Formats: sequence, structure tokens, C-alpha cells
Amino acid sequence: MIIDKLHEIVDKKGPVCVGLDTAIEYLPESFLKKYNYIDHALYRFNERIIDATFDIAGCYKVQIAYYEALGTLGLEVYKNTLKYIREKGGIVIGDIKRGDIAATASMYAKAHFTGDFECDFVTLNPYMGLDSIEPYLKYVESGEKGIFALVRTSNKGAKDIQYIDSNGEKVYEIVGDKINQLGKKYVGSCGYSAIGGVVGCTHRDEAMEIRKRLGSTYFLIPGYGAQGGTAEDVALYMKNGNGGVVNSSRGILLAYKNQEGRENDFELCAREEVLRIREELNKALGGKENEHKLWTAYSA
Amino acid sequence: MIIDKLHEIVDKKGPVCVGLDTAIEYLPESFLKKYNYIDHALYRFNERIIDATFDIAGCYKVQIAYYEALGTLGLEVYKNTLKYIREKGGIVIGDIKRGDIAATASMYAKAHFTGDFECDFVTLNPYMGLDSIEPYLKYVESGEKGIFALVRTSNKGAKDIQYIDSNGEKVYEIVGDKINQLGKKYVGSCGYSAIGGVVGCTHRDEAMEIRKRLGSTYFLIPGYGAQGGTAEDVALYMKNGNGGVVNSSRGILLAYKNQEGRENDFELCAREEVLRIREELNKALGGKENEHKLWTAYSA
Repeated sequence: MIIDKLHEIVDKKGPVCVGLDTAIEYLPESFLKKYNYIDHALYRFNERIIDATFDIAGCYKVQIAYYEALGTLGLEVYKNTLKYIREKGGIVIGDIKRGDIAATASMYAKAHFTGDFECDFVTLNPYMGLDSIEPYLKYVESGEKGIFALVRTSNKGAKDIQYIDSNGEKVYEIVGDKINQLGKKYVGSCGYSAIGGVVGCTHRDEAMEIRKRLGSTYFLIPGYGAQGGTAEDVALYMKNGNGGVVNSSRGILLAYKNQEGRENDFELCAREEVLRIREELNKALGGKENEHKLWTAYSA
Repeated sequence: MIIDKLHEIVDKKGPVCVGLDTAIEYLPESFLKKYNYIDHALYRFNERIIDATFDIAGCYKVQIAYYEALGTLGLEVYKNTLKYIREKGGIVIGDIKRGDIAATASMYAKAHFTGDFECDFVTLNPYMGLDSIEPYLKYVESGEKGIFALVRTSNKGAKDIQYIDSNGEKVYEIVGDKINQLGKKYVGSCGYSAIGGVVGCTHRDEAMEIRKRLGSTYFLIPGYGAQGGTAEDVALYMKNGNGGVVNSSRGILLAYKNQEGRENDFELCAREEVLRIREELNKALGGKENEHKLWTAYSA
């Protein structure tokens, strides 16, 4: 099952999910200048980031909006980026957050689990209900695909709907329970389900509560660094170090901006940032600093 | 403002929104055979439907999932379909149901309000909160663009989240109030806001309650015919005949299947179905049957 493959890679390489939310403005000027076509530059930038982080990234998350914004040309870059990661043997999450009724959801499932935009996991928005997730399940049943459904996000507006209280339970808790329940049929040998949940990193009390409640749900934890939440908060989601993947996008892609004169080494700066996050999480999980090179060793 | 333009067209042509959720399997075999490339056939099919319904359609809704399912080639058809409608002077809703946090939402707004995929209105999913809608507002403020946010859908799974009860109020009611409130800043001279709501057609008690509650919210009412709800139920959303648009997709695109030997006239069958729906709504609104050709006359 795909969740076992992800779990195994995270065991080896650590839980950092490299977010390829690549905006053109993120590309170093000197790099951009070398290309006549923006889409070529964008793809090549991604390729270099992937190559430089492949041995230390648990997986990749590609945010489709950044490519959609460039129209059909951008979506060619999206397609080729997914393809590159998968052909290398990596795992890629299509961050699409689609959500629609059955007939339409079938089309989205076809779009993102087969053909041009095929990826290993997709993120989904459950607002329309669990039947909006159903059309994806035949792909999950095949063992080859997985899902991360939005449960609780860490943006300010999350309170508008996700925090509505119903008899002492919050909407996101009710949603989380449903996702965890739905996922029970798809639990792999690693103990986690191919139906995971997206949970933002915020307060530690909440993180502990969510982790306890959604025992077999693997987490995609976005916005590390950018959206608040410390390594200690995130560690609570991770159980023994492998209960989810922690995504950083801008922090990794723009790491070169924090170091004067390293524009041409942008991919090495990205690599260093991944290592830094991995080390930070390792420490929060109680591991020893700089003692080991691989996550396997960290959590041993 | 775009909402005034839509309102005016609906006054003239009626409230039927033609849904171009065009799956390849919907194309008559004899038609499909004429083309060497599926994308050419798909686009030409849409073009003929648009031409045959243009004088009697309030607007068009194009469901992007059906095009995404065909990868980048499909998205070329999506792009060209939007372009064709807009160049003819029609209004098109991109049914994308996107929903994401600020930086990403900005990218989606750019993707669907400018460039290749530019349309007049988009549908949005508010689960992540109102700040996920904010990046679209600068386009709304320009007067040229509008939004339909999901409020209450009519699929079975809608109960999973939208019907969660919070102190006697349902989640969809709370969401509806927030959308209506947010929209107050963008009310046009027609009395409705450029921030509309998607509400499925189901029970009449609910429809009345929603219409009363969301006074300045224009509705996109999807799934007419397919997802239940009678003309009488829909009429309650419409106030005096112009408080929303009523979408039908398969019912219109596949109308030719109900009539033996009319495969080659698929666009005329579509036209007849639009007229039939318009007449059905007209009657439900208390108008006289077959008395007038245009909606203007109907509601006079």
C-alpha cells in the first residue's frame, strides 16, 4: 500500500515534505535569465530542488494553484514535475484540495490518479460530505493511491467553519472522526491508513487531542515555519517520529534568500533547510543533535 | 458590476444556466467519428451547444473537472470554451470549487480571473474560512468579477458537515449568513451582491428559509432535474423570477438521447430542453404557459 511505502521512506529519510509551491518570483534572477521560456525555468528549478533533496525528503507536495495561475503552460510544468518525482521513485502529493459531488469527483479522481496529473496522494476538501470522497476510494482500494482530507487548518479563518461548536464538539473534530472511521478499511501494515488528514500546526493541546483521537490517521502537516507552530507542537502529531509528514514550501524554496551571494546555490540552500528542519524535529522528538545522518538512525 | 450584467441577461433570456460538464461519452457517436482528435470534438460540441442556446440561456457554467480529467489537452478545451462564451458577450461561471489559504488562493484567483482560464464568476469552497475568499475580492471590487460560494449542496453527504447543528443553527446557515454579510459591500443596482451562494434544490421549507435569510445573495442552483427538487421548490429561491440561475448539465447535453434518431440535432434537442426548463420555471412562478417567447415578457 502507498501509505506503507510513504511510512517506510519517512523511516529512512525523515518526515520533511518538500513543498513545490513554486512561484516565478521565487526563482533567483540570475537563474531566470538563463531561460527564454518561463515554463522551462520553472521546471528546471523544481528539478534541481528535487535532485538536491531527494535523499533527505520524505515526500514532495506540489501545490497545483501555482501552476494553474500560469494557465495551460503552467500545468505542463505541474505534469512534468509530478512525473519527474514519480520516475525517480519518490512519492508526490498533489495539493489540489478538490471537493465536489459524485459524478464530478469521479472526474477529479481520474484527473489526478491517472493520466497527465497522476500523483500518489491528493488533498481533498470534505465540505460537501463523505460521498464527495467516495469516487477516490476505488483507487485507494487498489493499494496504489492515498488521500489527505482537510481536517483542521491553521489559517486565521479556520475558526469560521471548522471551529463551530456542536454540543461541545468542534466541526473539525467531527470531520476528523469521520475521516478516521472511513480510513479504518485502508490501514496498512504500518498501522496507518491510506486516508490521511491535513492538520495545521498550531497549539499543542489541540495537537495532542487530535493525535489521540485519530489514532490510525497519518497526517500531512502544512505550513511548518510559515504558519506558526513550533517543532515541539508538530512532534506531538508524530507519535514515535513517524505519524505524518511536515511540509515546508517557501521556507525551503527561498532558503537562498537568507544567505548573501548564494543565489546560484539555491538548491543547496534548500537542502540545508530540509536538514535543519529535520534536525529541529529530531530534537523535539528527543533525539540527539547531529548524531546521525538518517532519520532511521534518529528514531532508533 | 458583473452581477448587474447577469441580472439583466436573466431578465431578458431567463434563468437557465447551461452546464457544460461535457464528458466524451456524452457526444453522439456519429459526431465523435467526424473528428480525429477528441479535444477538437469536445470543443466543437460545446460550441454548437452554446450557439444553439445563446439567446435563451442566462449564463453558462463550465465544470473544470471534466476537462482536468483529460489533462492539459482537456484544459485547452476548457480555456477555449470560456473564451468562446465571453467573446460572444455571454457570462460564464467557472465551476472550480477551489478553496485554500491566502497565498494559494491568490494564485487560484489569478488563474481563474485572468489569463487562460479567465471567467466571470467562480464557485468557491469556504471550508477553510472567509480568509480563503479574501484574495478574490480585489477582482470583485473592480466590478468585473463575481463569486458563488458553496452554502448548501443537495447531495446525500451534505448532512455530514453542512447539517451539523450548533445551538439550533446548521453549519450551512452560519456559512450562508457569513457569505451574505461579506457580500453586502458588493451589492449592485439590481439589489444582489457579486458574492453569490451555491444552494442545491431540495426541500421547499429550506428554500424559503434560505431565501429569506440571505436577502441580497444571488443563487446558483445546480443539478436541476438530476439532483431532485421541483420547479416549485426552485421558484422559492427566485423571488420575483430573478434571484438566481438554475443549472442543468446532463439534462441539456444529453437531451438528444431521449429522442430516437436526433443524434445529429443534439444542439437543437439541447435548445428544446432549455426552453422546457424555462417554461417549467415560468409556470411555477405563476406565469402563463407558452404566452411569451422571452423571460422579460414572462415576468412582466
